[in-house]
Amino acid sequence: MTTGKIRIIPLGGLGEVGKNMMVLEYGDEILIIDVGVMFPDDEMYGVDLVIPDASYLADKKSRIRGILITHGHEDHVGALPYILPMLDFPPVFATRLTQGLIQVKLKEHRLLDKATINVITPGDELKLGSSTIEFFRVNHSIPDAVGLAIRTPLGIIVHTGDYKFDYTPIDGKPADFGKLGSLGNEGVLLMMGDSTRVETPGYTPSERVINDSLDKIFANAPGRIMLATFASLISRVQQVADTASRYDRFIALVGRSMVNNVQMAMELGYLDIPPGMLIRAEDINKFRPEQVVIICTGSQGEPTSALTRIANQDHRLIRIQRADTVILSATPVPGNEKMVHRTINNLFRQGAEVFYQGISNVHVSGHGAQEELKLMLSLIRPKFFIPVHGEYRQLVLHAKLGYSLGIPDENIVVAEDGDIIEVTPDTIKTVGHLSSGNVFVDGLSVGDVGQIVLRDRKVLSQDGILMAVLTVDKETGQPIAGPDIVSRGFVYMRDAEELLESARIRVLESFADLNNHSANGHMSDWAFVKDKIKYTLSEFLYEKTHRRPMIIPVVMEV
Amino acid sequence: MTTGKIRIIPLGGLGEVGKNMMVLEYGDEILIIDVGVMFPDDEMYGVDLVIPDASYLADKKSRIRGILITHGHEDHVGALPYILPMLDFPPVFATRLTQGLIQVKLKEHRLLDKATINVITPGDELKLGSSTIEFFRVNHSIPDAVGLAIRTPLGIIVHTGDYKFDYTPIDGKPADFGKLGSLGNEGVLLMMGDSTRVETPGYTPSERVINDSLDKIFANAPGRIMLATFASLISRVQQVADTASRYDRFIALVGRSMVNNVQMAMELGYLDIPPGMLIRAEDINKFRPEQVVIICTGSQGEPTSALTRIANQDHRLIRIQRADTVILSATPVPGNEKMVHRTINNLFRQGAEVFYQGISNVHVSGHGAQEELKLMLSLIRPKFFIPVHGEYRQLVLHAKLGYSLGIPDENIVVAEDGDIIEVTPDTIKTVGHLSSGNVFVDGLSVGDVGQIVLRDRKVLSQDGILMAVLTVDKETGQPIAGPDIVSRGFVYMRDAEELLESARIRVLESFADLNNHSANGHMSDWAFVKDKIKYTLSEFLYEKTHRRPMIIPVVMEV
Repeated sequence: MTTGKIRIIPLGGLGEVGKNMMVLEYGDEILIIDVGVMFPDDEMYGVDLVIPDASYLADKKSRIRGILITHGHEDHVGALPYILPMLDFPPVFATRLTQGLIQVKLKEHRLLDKATINVITPGDELKLGSSTIEFFRVNHSIPDAVGLAIRTPLGIIVHTGDYKFDYTPIDGKPADFGKLGSLGNEGVLLMMGDSTRVETPGYTPSERVINDSLDKIFANAPGRIMLATFASLISRVQQVADTASRYDRFIALVGRSMVNNVQMAMELGYLDIPPGMLIRAEDINKFRPEQVVIICTGSQGEPTSALTRIANQDHRLIRIQRADTVILSATPVPGNEKMVHRTINNLFRQGAEVFYQGISNVHVSGHGAQEELKLMLSLIRPKFFIPVHGEYRQLVLHAKLGYSLGIPDENIVVAEDGDIIEVTPDTIKTVGHLSSGNVFVDGLSVGDVGQIVLRDRKVLSQDGILMAVLTVDKETGQPIAGPDIVSRGFVYMRDAEELLESARIRVLESFADLNNHSANGHMSDWAFVKDKIKYTLSEFLYEKTHRRPMIIPVVMEV
Repeated sequence: MTTGKIRIIPLGGLGEVGKNMMVLEYGDEILIIDVGVMFPDDEMYGVDLVIPDASYLADKKSRIRGILITHGHEDHVGALPYILPMLDFPPVFATRLTQGLIQVKLKEHRLLDKATINVITPGDELKLGSSTIEFFRVNHSIPDAVGLAIRTPLGIIVHTGDYKFDYTPIDGKPADFGKLGSLGNEGVLLMMGDSTRVETPGYTPSERVINDSLDKIFANAPGRIMLATFASLISRVQQVADTASRYDRFIALVGRSMVNNVQMAMELGYLDIPPGMLIRAEDINKFRPEQVVIICTGSQGEPTSALTRIANQDHRLIRIQRADTVILSATPVPGNEKMVHRTINNLFRQGAEVFYQGISNVHVSGHGAQEELKLMLSLIRPKFFIPVHGEYRQLVLHAKLGYSLGIPDENIVVAEDGDIIEVTPDTIKTVGHLSSGNVFVDGLSVGDVGQIVLRDRKVLSQDGILMAVLTVDKETGQPIAGPDIVSRGFVYMRDAEELLESARIRVLESFADLNNHSANGHMSDWAFVKDKIKYTLSEFLYEKTHRRPMIIPVVMEV
């Protein structure tokens, strides 16, 4: 039967880059695509991670047929340790390497024995409820990435995952053009397509182009070579290993996630490194500099990562020495530019030769550029189109691209997280909106840091805090100790004694003033007293400094 | 006579982008080149502006012969209102438009009548002490930009200022090739050259290319056009005015600095806008949409700027309406990417068509790319070379460029702020280093916010603060009120009552514990007591939350 409708509800990744999570509902069946994290931006003070708000699913757990994972990047799997327990561990389906990466992650969270992660081979068919799902191979900056073709009773829904087209990928497995073409021939009801790189004209170059750059750098490097890249970029590690082999260099892995991922990828057969080529980081100095390649984490300038520590002369084992060559084989994720530049500057300061994207071709994107997005749309030829994975402008530009290829305007929906999109065989439209948003992980807690805590952190970060603490006699209402003024992050207290003493006097004055004007000669409405102190101090301090610290009056009765 | 030496001391702009300031000392004569600000980065919590540390000059004020300004951008003139008073207002020398921009700035700081800003016409010779200075025209993203040729008794020193070579600049005034060539023929002892764009191969396109993009956008815009750019980018305003004139549109200026700068540039003859073409922002709605161009500030996504407010539906006069076209004619300054993207996303959300650098050629850089840097070095052919204006990696790359053009390694100095470089007719070398750095402007104060205040703000921004306030009997040492726990930015207090109550109990316990173990049955060493409370709470809260708020114990004796 072909009546009914499908509801598409993005819980993450639409209108933002990261924390991808998509809900598909048909009747009482629910499928979920990806469960990723997002890294906090500057305004999410002190937050460790951002995960999707899955509260919509709280009363629908039993209806979830499965979670389909497109690939093993953090923004697609990183929230599983948080969301799986909330949803009573529905079965997860992923390709082999992706499963391996998820298991590493679940193990860290001691959830390995509770979760079921099923391995799917691209081409297999998976039956979940009334839908049949096929995983098809795409290229991305991690092996084993797939898109999804979901055969629902209403028609085929294609989700591209993150993708590009690489005719000569490092692992020898290009996208499944045959499948994409046959899906298009069969007729696709809806396509959801990756919009990340829609602003870039042309094609993303093949990973293969990196080989030439690496070869040239290796041929000329007089000493050690260090290469930093994403720990999940297994194909890049393979390229470095192949080049190192040609130049008779040994490889040392540095950085926890690099070590873990490479080990897992080798075990699963995704990496081919000759035995004896890997050496321990501790043993680097037993080899001549020109015999060594160090592959490490830190390509994003993350403060505690290997390369950042090396650049800061703060690494346990490794210091930059003259004649070192460092390669940053990655592009800064938006927002990380400053940290990456700081790392590069520090490496140069210590005399390293540094190659990085912008002055050398040492990285290519994992996402398709405009011509590839057009190719995907042209192969799939969907009736309806929802651009996914991108900030709003990218979704709009991807929608325009779809329109330019002949998809009618009314068949394209630009949606954001929480939108409820209804699809029938004949129509697509946004019918509602969930209250959805960011859930913050901070330390051990998930979700307790909200707008109020963040607003306070912001105020504190700008002008600090000033506390006025006063003990009063509960009988007479007279101050008997204090006010003590304590401040942090506002002024340098040793240089501001006069200012703080004046603030103390202001507090006493406004307190006396209040007592004089109250009916029984003293105040006991402490909320009112505190407000008055707060206002007085705030005005006084702004006049003197043009700063607005958070002001906290504390009154204790004895 | 040609004995002696010159000392070059960069106080800003070397090893960083911004707050350019360079000191030249010959005998007892001091010249200063540029006095700029830098905008604070994410880690300079709450700081408004960063200015150079000029304390080296504090005891040398009487020796300063003059301040030479290369052009009117903030990173070259912005610190004048702070530094001029510190140096007892030495005379400033600048081209006409630059003088105008400085005056606008000094007026805001009520310093106009104290300062002397002399106007120099490119080509004029200026005699200061034993040196003669010639200002020569260069191209940059502001009119009236110059480089400096300083004829000292030891030889010619050339400072390029910020520059590019534009053969077809909007104001019709290309760089002074004749002067550059003749300086090279005469023999230049030292060149200091702008390194900002050394990472980009090729040439920076002429400002002229923007005309075609603007023309195409204007031809197709169905409604209003809004263009945001730097308020100082006078030539861009001229381009928009010229295009608007061809399409019979009126111009409204929005944003205080845009209004001020355009007005000043018109008065000084740097902008040619036909009378009657300018309309008031209040009158926009009296015209049909297709008759209107709005030129506004906000191209960097600055929170309080015109375009950001418009994008946030928060502007006093202007709301986005269907068929609006918005042009961001600027590149995000590094660090501003997220804010700019947010603005673009919000404009798209409200239905505007948005053109921005990356998807459309609506901006070109004001700095020369690699081939232009080579051209400058080839025209000047200096004996010694100091790359200036750039982060460390850019200075290194510029040095390598100089080396590739035949300047010997030992004749190139890569220096950073505070380095003291000594130049004789035969040698150049770094001979020392001043303690130099960033001076922070925060509210009314200059320099009082230092590392301690910033560190506190950082801690506060990450995990907030928790105060434990306790009143004790000074005779018995027993607590008689509290402990009260007050926290901000740590947890959402309403949801954490249990945690905070446990914290309260921990404080009481550790206090009782201390009393039991003290000689006379109670403590009076409050520093010790506070440390103990702090430690106990810190451990307890970390165990429960994995967060580390700042902990402030306050003990009051009555």
